[in-house]
Amino acid sequence: MYKHKVNNMPETGKFITFEGIDGSGKSTLITEIKDYLENQKIKVFQSREPGGVPIAEEIRSLLLSDVFIGSAGETEALMMFAARFEHLKNAIIPALEKGEWVLCDRFTDSTFAYQVFGRGIDFSCVEKLSDLVHPNHHPDLTILLDLDTNISLKRITQKEEKLNRLDDNTDCFQDRVKEGYLKLSQKYPKRIKVVDATQSFDNVLKQTKELLDPLLS
Amino acid sequence: MYKHKVNNMPETGKFITFEGIDGSGKSTLITEIKDYLENQKIKVFQSREPGGVPIAEEIRSLLLSDVFIGSAGETEALMMFAARFEHLKNAIIPALEKGEWVLCDRFTDSTFAYQVFGRGIDFSCVEKLSDLVHPNHHPDLTILLDLDTNISLKRITQKEEKLNRLDDNTDCFQDRVKEGYLKLSQKYPKRIKVVDATQSFDNVLKQTKELLDPLLS
Repeated sequence: MYKHKVNNMPETGKFITFEGIDGSGKSTLITEIKDYLENQKIKVFQSREPGGVPIAEEIRSLLLSDVFIGSAGETEALMMFAARFEHLKNAIIPALEKGEWVLCDRFTDSTFAYQVFGRGIDFSCVEKLSDLVHPNHHPDLTILLDLDTNISLKRITQKEEKLNRLDDNTDCFQDRVKEGYLKLSQKYPKRIKVVDATQSFDNVLKQTKELLDPLLS
Repeated sequence: MYKHKVNNMPETGKFITFEGIDGSGKSTLITEIKDYLENQKIKVFQSREPGGVPIAEEIRSLLLSDVFIGSAGETEALMMFAARFEHLKNAIIPALEKGEWVLCDRFTDSTFAYQVFGRGIDFSCVEKLSDLVHPNHHPDLTILLDLDTNISLKRITQKEEKLNRLDDNTDCFQDRVKEGYLKLSQKYPKRIKVVDATQSFDNVLKQTKELLDPLLS
């Protein structure tokens, strides 16, 4: 439906996304994986969602601000896909066309996990938005860091990070998100690979590298 | 697709939208029509898009800010529908359920006119978003104030209003929007009624009242 004509070049890069509840260790892992790939002379574009480009970062700020308290899950999903359209058009696709590997902290699986499983909007709603916004762009590989929500909240608190609106576990929101992620991994077992994030970080890193290696050859 | 369960009451009110390029006289007309209806003991809820409720007004501010210069038409459309979802759920539908008449300055026809005809995104894209966000809610009547773009720009300048990002007529943008509106009125002739806004305001008002009268009986 949406056309993402950028340079009309073949996309020779790889698109890798990292998913999981906050506190699961995505950002530390992405930094290490970036080094790992760059050591093999692969150019890496590291990004995050919602965000990654200025307009999308503005949408992120609005979404995470107190103004959005009480917003409908559907509204959040539409805003996420607005940010995603800009991110794809102006950053992800150009990078893939240059042969770069895109390492992205969250993508559409997050909208399924948080807005569908967490907030309870229809699965088909996010599916339709995904078909509309990026019919031809799906991650080559998704690393899902699976972690018990009690551990993740403890980790966030230890880092003295401020919980954002979507980190709150009132009414077991985070538990539904975690379970939602696992359901997604069962629906797309070839693409989404679950890594147990309760392991030592060294083991998480080792396992992630092993999952990436088939894409390197 | 999206459920708008508010009070699950029958919607006994009427939903009237006003469309046209800026400077076509929508707001003055809406004020007069509000008086006309209230004089007949009809409760009126007056609103506008994008906006109408706090979250949607915040989305409006972001959309019209300089930050959004260079955004894709698709991104704008997704943001418009995010604002629209909040507006429908929290203001339009509750008002219709209370039997009020909703007078709204712009609705989905604006997204067709500005983003599809003005900016060139696919018609089917906005059609799909409309089906997703408000499958069961369409205006009972839409008044389209048709005006030559030279006159509208002169009117805006005379009022010393600052042109916003979407009022600019560079590359005949406003002309495409005006023509787009007329195409919509041909596609939905029963719902969209064209009123010639080059007439005196008294005539515009008289004609609008005549178009509303069948809904009053």
